[in-house]
Parts: sequence; structure tokens; C-alpha cells
Amino acid sequence: MGSCSSVCDFILEYDTPRIVLIKNRKVGMINRVVQLAILAYVIGWVLVWQKGYQEFDSTIGSVTTKVKGITITNSSPHEEYIWDAADYVIPSQQENSFFVMTNFILTKNQTQGRCPELPNESTRCKSDTDCPAGQHSSHSNGILTGKCIHYDVNVKTCEIFAWCPVENDTVIPNPAILGAAENFTVLIKNSITFPKFNFSKRNILTNATASYLKSCIFNRNTDPFCPIFRLGDMVQEAREDFQKLAVQGGVMGILIEWNCNLDQSSSKCIPKYVFRRLDNKDFAATVSPGYNFRFAKYFVNLNGIEVRTLFKTYGIRFEVEVFGQAGKFDIIPTMINIGSGLALLGMATILCDIIVLYFLKKSKYYKEKKYKYVEDYELGIESED
Amino acid sequence: MGSCSSVCDFILEYDTPRIVLIKNRKVGMINRVVQLAILAYVIGWVLVWQKGYQEFDSTIGSVTTKVKGITITNSSPHEEYIWDAADYVIPSQQENSFFVMTNFILTKNQTQGRCPELPNESTRCKSDTDCPAGQHSSHSNGILTGKCIHYDVNVKTCEIFAWCPVENDTVIPNPAILGAAENFTVLIKNSITFPKFNFSKRNILTNATASYLKSCIFNRNTDPFCPIFRLGDMVQEAREDFQKLAVQGGVMGILIEWNCNLDQSSSKCIPKYVFRRLDNKDFAATVSPGYNFRFAKYFVNLNGIEVRTLFKTYGIRFEVEVFGQAGKFDIIPTMINIGSGLALLGMATILCDIIVLYFLKKSKYYKEKKYKYVEDYELGIESED
Amino acid sequence: MGSCSSVCDFILEYDTPRIVLIKNRKVGMINRVVQLAILAYVIGWVLVWQKGYQEFDSTIGSVTTKVKGITITNSSPHEEYIWDAADYVIPSQQENSFFVMTNFILTKNQTQGRCPELPNESTRCKSDTDCPAGQHSSHSNGILTGKCIHYDVNVKTCEIFAWCPVENDTVIPNPAILGAAENFTVLIKNSITFPKFNFSKRNILTNATASYLKSCIFNRNTDPFCPIFRLGDMVQEAREDFQKLAVQGGVMGILIEWNCNLDQSSSKCIPKYVFRRLDNKDFAATVSPGYNFRFAKYFVNLNGIEVRTLFKTYGIRFEVEVFGQAGKFDIIPTMINIGSGLALLGMATILCDIIVLYFLKKSKYYKEKKYKYVEDYELGIESED
Repeated sequence: MGSCSSVCDFILEYDTPRIVLIKNRKVGMINRVVQLAILAYVIGWVLVWQKGYQEFDSTIGSVTTKVKGITITNSSPHEEYIWDAADYVIPSQQENSFFVMTNFILTKNQTQGRCPELPNESTRCKSDTDCPAGQHSSHSNGILTGKCIHYDVNVKTCEIFAWCPVENDTVIPNPAILGAAENFTVLIKNSITFPKFNFSKRNILTNATASYLKSCIFNRNTDPFCPIFRLGDMVQEAREDFQKLAVQGGVMGILIEWNCNLDQSSSKCIPKYVFRRLDNKDFAATVSPGYNFRFAKYFVNLNGIEVRTLFKTYGIRFEVEVFGQAGKFDIIPTMINIGSGLALLGMATILCDIIVLYFLKKSKYYKEKKYKYVEDYELGIESED
Repeated sequence: MGSCSSVCDFILEYDTPRIVLIKNRKVGMINRVVQLAILAYVIGWVLVWQKGYQEFDSTIGSVTTKVKGITITNSSPHEEYIWDAADYVIPSQQENSFFVMTNFILTKNQTQGRCPELPNESTRCKSDTDCPAGQHSSHSNGILTGKCIHYDVNVKTCEIFAWCPVENDTVIPNPAILGAAENFTVLIKNSITFPKFNFSKRNILTNATASYLKSCIFNRNTDPFCPIFRLGDMVQEAREDFQKLAVQGGVMGILIEWNCNLDQSSSKCIPKYVFRRLDNKDFAATVSPGYNFRFAKYFVNLNGIEVRTLFKTYGIRFEVEVFGQAGKFDIIPTMINIGSGLALLGMATILCDIIVLYFLKKSKYYKEKKYKYVEDYELGIESED
Repeated sequence: MGSCSSVCDFILEYDTPRIVLIKNRKVGMINRVVQLAILAYVIGWVLVWQKGYQEFDSTIGSVTTKVKGITITNSSPHEEYIWDAADYVIPSQQENSFFVMTNFILTKNQTQGRCPELPNESTRCKSDTDCPAGQHSSHSNGILTGKCIHYDVNVKTCEIFAWCPVENDTVIPNPAILGAAENFTVLIKNSITFPKFNFSKRNILTNATASYLKSCIFNRNTDPFCPIFRLGDMVQEAREDFQKLAVQGGVMGILIEWNCNLDQSSSKCIPKYVFRRLDNKDFAATVSPGYNFRFAKYFVNLNGIEVRTLFKTYGIRFEVEVFGQAGKFDIIPTMINIGSGLALLGMATILCDIIVLYFLKKSKYYKEKKYKYVEDYELGIESED
């Protein structure tokens, strides 16, 4: 042992704290119970239940959708008219959402020109002075020309320069014209990636046969992995009434949740579908309730004049939102959790120290055993340890 | 006490480290100051300020938009022409963004055929040999037919097979044709979810009345929660000039930030709107500056031939980006932070040990008190502790 | 020292654990090796390699795209026909993706009316009784009128009310009509933000000159930061055959990864492009293979009747997915990692204790040195320490 320099001495040393072992049933019991609770918490809850040994990554997803279904309408303004996906899906493709028209107000053969505004409090007039030329508000359909003309036999309104005749959207068709959209189906293809783990998967599971996929319809109980959804079923799962929703339109969320444990077989990484209404049901409390938008089809008529057919379309916008987390064993979160678990174990000792040193009758006796007092002066009183 | 086996003995034991209590004003002071600093850091900064006791989740958001406003143009190429949302919002609906056309170059009545290319360095020609048939570059409008023909009285260019006449986009209308878009308004409906906490909210707050929502315009100071935004105001908040932006177009970001503390009342979870220009203002340094795209309206003319009207539309694309975090109390991050805080507390002791054992005059004296040396041999010298 | 109250005494005290220093070469060596390993792990792996001293934030990105290229087709059903971006990019703009039509099935001059259904097992008929009026399935083109009529000289099918004539998509053009799309290029402008760090950047790097940007084409080796991509190159990088892909269409992912260390110069924060096929190549195992959708162009014919041209378009949808993380020094993750690192250091002592107290011959001797036994009774046997 003298064969080693002092550096070498230091290297081969090993230090360990000196411990007082106190045999006291009550305190020992408390100590062990607290230690057990902390161990159970760290191992059971943090590590096992919350998967504290895993690193997590969020999904990146890609979604394509295809709506199928036909229906026939014979209510005015159309006579018998057949609707297929090219007619009622507008626009024909979107990224993570699709819109199915369920109701509409059609204004055919609009041309640029002059015509009376729709009658309401601010547009009714008695003479031209009520209609200052050039004015318009954000709710008007055109720009005042300065004249006051007959809207019908009884009512006069200001004349406007606009796409004429102006759209009359005061009455929304009820029941919805395309209420049969309830039976349309949509095929949703979703491909996800967890870039951190270089893991990809699709919602069309590999064990599904092509013939199954051609005929199945999603059902939470019997066909939970079929990627074809009936529109009516989705709305019903969100506890909404499709026919009511169809009148004014709305926004539905199709949430695809991928929560995967990549430490297990990848075949256990499966999507979970949730359907939820995203817009405000409470129409009284909001502006522009439901979901609608206007678009126009433009033509040139026989006289070479541009005409348009204006659609105010009401319908259901389905938004597909892909989210979720994948976890995989990683040393860093494991070590962070074990490290802070070890530090927490020290709390058992701190707690018992407080009990022993302050609450037991013989605390003074224990205090003497645990502590050694060293004064700043050599001649200070040293407690014998 | 003899009534218990050795296992039982072990269970009811309780061990606590033996401590030297050193009464030294300087070191004691340092010890307490360092401990206080660490405590202040752990409690004040990590736990309270940075909300280390919370688990966090990111938002999933859904956005719908509706632009309103009309304007009239009477500059060439149109005579008086009225524009409403169905005309200038292209496409009529998108997911998280909307495009408002502010400027355009119109090429009417294009048909498939042969016509001279636009004159530039590479298309001017003197004879047919300058125009090798079949060639085309990524910047040309069509495929060379092999002939060199008159573009106008003075200039000859290669003939191309293309949609004729070809679009001439060398001069961009300035000021922008639809510069009045500055006064258009957009209603943004945003619904968010924090899936981990099963918490949803909308940007149309429940305490807003329908009449308020029909007339309000967003203003950071007076109406910070009004969901209706004037396009000009948003561009101005981003410190841009709308009329300049309107000429060549651009991309604007509407950032909706939801930073919520779900331990508090949900009514305090409110959106914050920020507007920012996303594309590069520095036109000299980039390709394809501004924002524009081409689309065509297709017709069949009186002779049964397909014609199209080509629009090169310049405009502002507004992208609505929803982001943010919600925090809620959770035992795991709390414990991780407390655990590592406790471990940090040990640093006070380590620091003071270094001072006491190496920098104090009487370090040898303290060393003897703290350490007990045990040699590997029973007959080794044991320092008396 | 008598000049201080007991509170003051407490404040100026300083406690440090009493340590046994054991000079044992084997155990000392183990102790130091374990300590070194833990230190190396904490400093080398967690802090330096995994950047445990940084806080991270995810990107928010905005993408605009512009496709360029022309091609000519002269196969039937068209004669010579020129295609430019306004024709084959559908819709003309999307948010984070763009669709390039590469193949299509055209059904011209459809009108609402009655015509025979396409022949297949379920639509062939012998008499009217095989065609119950009003029926339709999700795969039919229209609603049965109840009649059985001649499809051609040999075959009879049920008559339907539909857009007539019905589309015949049984034969997909092969090779793809617009296979020349392989040479089209796309300019991708991407602007990203890390909101937590208030950092923004664009994929068009500031050191690129305008002339370079006008002529460059992305190449992983020679031009890795050129924002203009040739469609064929991207498909090839994903190890797919463009001409095969063009026939039935597909979904390609353009992944832009921004992994930035904001503690370094921002010029080192650069995008990385990865191309990947997102849909299922294995056509046998899936429904609706490839990528296609239908849309219609609507006209009014000379008799005032609405006709439409139905496109079933096959093509490649390119999805631009922006993701990545930025890291920047932050005190909290640093402290969490150091704190749990310190706690881990204690494991060296625990490990050596186990060796010394249970596996060494002289464990009893060491045990006596480390532990002091205190019984519950004053008269208990105290081991001399």
C-alpha cells in the first residue's frame, strides 16, 4: 500500500457515507412504507404505466379521400336531376378534408347589370334620395346606382349595379335537397410516419383482403378497421342528426388517433377513429351558423355575354385530423426518470429523520447518534459520537 | 426485540446518514445562501414561472373562413364590372387558408392553334431555321412549329402550337385592379382541441352577443376578440403596404396562438392573433416574387370549339396557422422537477465541502471529522474519528 | 459563539455527511470506473450528443408551389392538343400539396338522361324484371328506370337515369397520356418559423443569386439547395418508375426537414429534402389503387341544356410536409439533466456498497465501519464505531 503515490491513492479509494442504523419498529415501518410507496410510484406509475422508459414522437400523416354515392332530386328548382360525386364534392379534391354539398340555393343566369336590391330595413326606399349613388355596405349585393325602383308591385328598393338578378337566400330549403347524402360513403386512405423512429404505416391494414375492402362499411363494433365510412354513421356517432345538419351545413371532425408502442409488434399499432362536430351547434349564439360558401359556374351565352350560375352551397365539411404518439425505449428518458426516482427515495430518509429527531420522545438520544458537532474552535465542545 | 427474525429486523430498521454539523459562520452562510438560491431556482423559476408542475399538450385546430366585400372596376380590359366573393376568392374554399385576388392579367378566348411566341431574346427569329420544330423550354408558352412569322409589323418570332393568343404578362397592372380588397372583411371561425386534456374551445367567445359579432371589426386594442378582420388592417399590422402588396401578391400568415393554463378557469384560455408576412419582400433576391397562379375558365364556343379564358391572378394568400400549448397539473413532471431539485440541493453540500476541505486553514481538522479512513488490512492505521 | 441565538446558530451551521474512506484497490477501481462511465454518459451522451442542454421547438411552415412545363399530345381521344400548367394542375392552387394530372379518361357531352348502364355481372339483364326501378348501389352510375335495353348488338343492360353517356373507365390508357410530365418542374417556396425562439427562415437561401435560381434544378449532390425540382427526379429518388406511376397515379411525399441548432450560426440551419412514396404500391392488396378523382367542366349547349365534360383524372399528388426541430440552450433542461446525472452518480456508491458489504471476505469488518447500530432501548448494545 505504500507502493502507490497519493494520486494513485485517491484513485483507488472508495468513499461511502456512514450510516446510523436505528432499530425502531414504528419509524422503521414508516421508513419502509414510504420507500415502498416511492418505489411503486417510480416503477409502477412512471416507468411502467406512463412508459417513462420511452422516447416519444408525433405523427406526420397524409390523407386521401374518395366519396361515392348517387342520388336523384325532383323538387324544384330542378326537375329530375341525378347527382354524382363530381357534382356534389366541391372542390373535387382537398388535402385533409372533403366537402359534401347537402343543400343549395341556385341563382341561374346572373349577368352584370342593374336590378333592385333585396328588400330589408336598409334597402327599402321611397325616392331616389334614399339611395345615395356609389354606396355599399359589407352585406349588400352591389353598389347603389342612386335610383329607387320597384322590387315587386308593393315594395320599392334601391337599384344596384350587381350580378343580376341578385341571390335571394332568405329561405333555406328544408328538408335539405341532398339529404340522401346520408347514405354516401367515403374511402379514407391514411398513411402515417413517425420520422424519429423511421416507422410508417397505413390505415388499410395488411391483413384486410381486397374483397373485404370492397364491401365493408366501418362499424365501431363489427368492422373497426374498415376504411370506408357511411356519412350518416359518422354524424350519428357524433350524436348529431344528419337531416338537421344537412339543412344549414356544419363541420365534422374525423379524428384518426395513432397511439403506438413501437417496443411491441407493429401489428398492434392500429388507428382509432373518433367523430366529433367541430362547429358551434348553438346557432343563436354565433354569426354565420352552419357551413356554407358561394361559388359560381361561368358561361358565355348565345349573345357572347358572360353569365354565371351562382351556388350558395350548404354542406358538411369533413376534416380528417391525424394525430398520435409513438413511444420507443430510449436510454435518456429512462435515466432521467430513474435518476429522479433515486433522488425521491432520499425523501423517505428525510421524512423519518424529521419524525425521529423532532417527534420521538428520545429524539435527543437519536440526535446524538446522528450528528457530531464540530465547533469552529478546537477547544469547542465536541459531542462524543 | 429478540422476538423478531433477521428479515423482520431488516424490515423494521431505518438508516440515516451520519452527519457532521460544523459551526462555522462563513461556511454556514455560504451553505445557506447556495441552498436558498437552489430552492429559489427550483420553486420560483422551474415550478412557478415555467410551470414545471404541468404537463403540456399541443393544439389541434380547425379553421373555416368567409370573405365578404364587393367592389367595382371600370378600368380596361373590363368596362364597369362588379366583383363579389364568388369572383375573387379562388378556390371558393380551402382548409386553413384563403386567397383573395387583387390583380390579374386576363387572356380571353384562347383556343388551341398556331400563333407567334412573345418576343424576347430567345424567341426572335429571322428565318425558319432559327426555329427548330418540336423544341420547347420550361419558359415557353408552346411548342415550336418550325416557322418564323410576324409578331407585329417590326418583329418576327417563332410560331408555336399553343393556346392562342399567348398571354402577355410583361406588364403587371399598377395600381392593382382590385386594390379595393383592402376593405374586404373575413370571418375566421377557429375551433381547437387539446386531445390529451379533452378540452375544446372556439375563437368566438361565448360572452360575445350575436349583434356584436355582426358589426364588429377586429382591433388589437378595442376589439381583440372579434373574429372579423379587415384585410387592410391585417396587412398594416404586419407593417406592409396593402396597395404595394396587391400588385404582385404575397403570402400573409394569420397566427392564432392558444396558450392556456387549464388549471385556471377555461374562460382565461383565449386566442391571440398575430399577423406576419411569410414570403420574401426582397423581390430582387428571389425567383417568382410575390404570389400568383394561373387558372382557366373553359367554354365551348358557338362553333363547338373549346375556348378558355386564362387568368394569371395575383393576390394575397392568407394562411391561418393555429398553434399553442395547454398546461395542466400532472404528477410526473412535478416529481421529475422536484426530484432533480433535491439532487441539486446536494450541490450546496458539495460546494461547501470543497471550501471546507481545501480552502480553510483548518481543513485538516475538518477532514478528520468528516472522514474515517479504513485500510484494506485490519492492521492498517485507522484514523480515530 | 455565545453571541448568537439558536436560530442564528441553525442558520450558520453547515452539515455534511460523514464518510468512510475505504482504501481497497479492487473496490476503489470499480467505484472510479462506474463513476467515470456515469460521468461520460451524462456529459458525453446526454449533454453533448443529445444536446440535453437545449430546449426544443417544432416548426410551423408555409408552402407555396408553382409547376412549370408544357407538353403536346396527339393520341386519341384528342387530336394535337397542348397542355400547360393551367390545364393539368388541378386545382390551380392548394396549401401544402399540388396535383399533376398524368392520365385521364374523358367523357364528353354528358347530359342528364336515360341510357344503358355499363355491362358487368350485376347490370346485365334479359328482361325488365331484372331491373327493379329506383334501385342503385354505391358502384352504379345512376338509378334504374326499370327497363332492360340494348347496350350494343349483343349485350342488354338495365337502363339508368344518369349523366349520359356513362363513363367507361374499364381500360386505363397505358402508357399514360401525359407521361411527359416527368420533365415538368416545380418551384417550392417554404418559409418556416420556430415560434418559441422567434426564428424564421426560408428554403431559398440568401446566398443564392437570382440568376442561379432561374436556371438550377435540384440535385442532391450538385445543387442540394436549389428550390426547383424536376418531377421525374423526385420520383426516381423515391425508387419508383415515373411512367408506371403515371398510369394509375399515386401520392408522393416531399419531406422538408429542418433540424437546426440555434446556438450556432443561423446559416447552418438548412433544409433537407427527402422524397418518398406515400400510397400503397401493392395494388393487389388495396382498394382504389393509385390516385384519381373525378371532376367535371359544365357548359350550356346551344339548346340551353346543361352538359358536362367528365374527367376521371389519374395523377401524382405531391404532398409537401415540413417538419423538424430547433434546439437552443435553456437552463431548465440543462438543470434537469445535471440534477438527474448527480443522482445517478450516487449509483456508483450503491453498487460498491453492495460489493463491499456482501461479496468481500471482510464484509463484516467494513460493515462495522460504515454502520453504527442504535437500538430502541438505551440499554441496547451499541456497536462501537
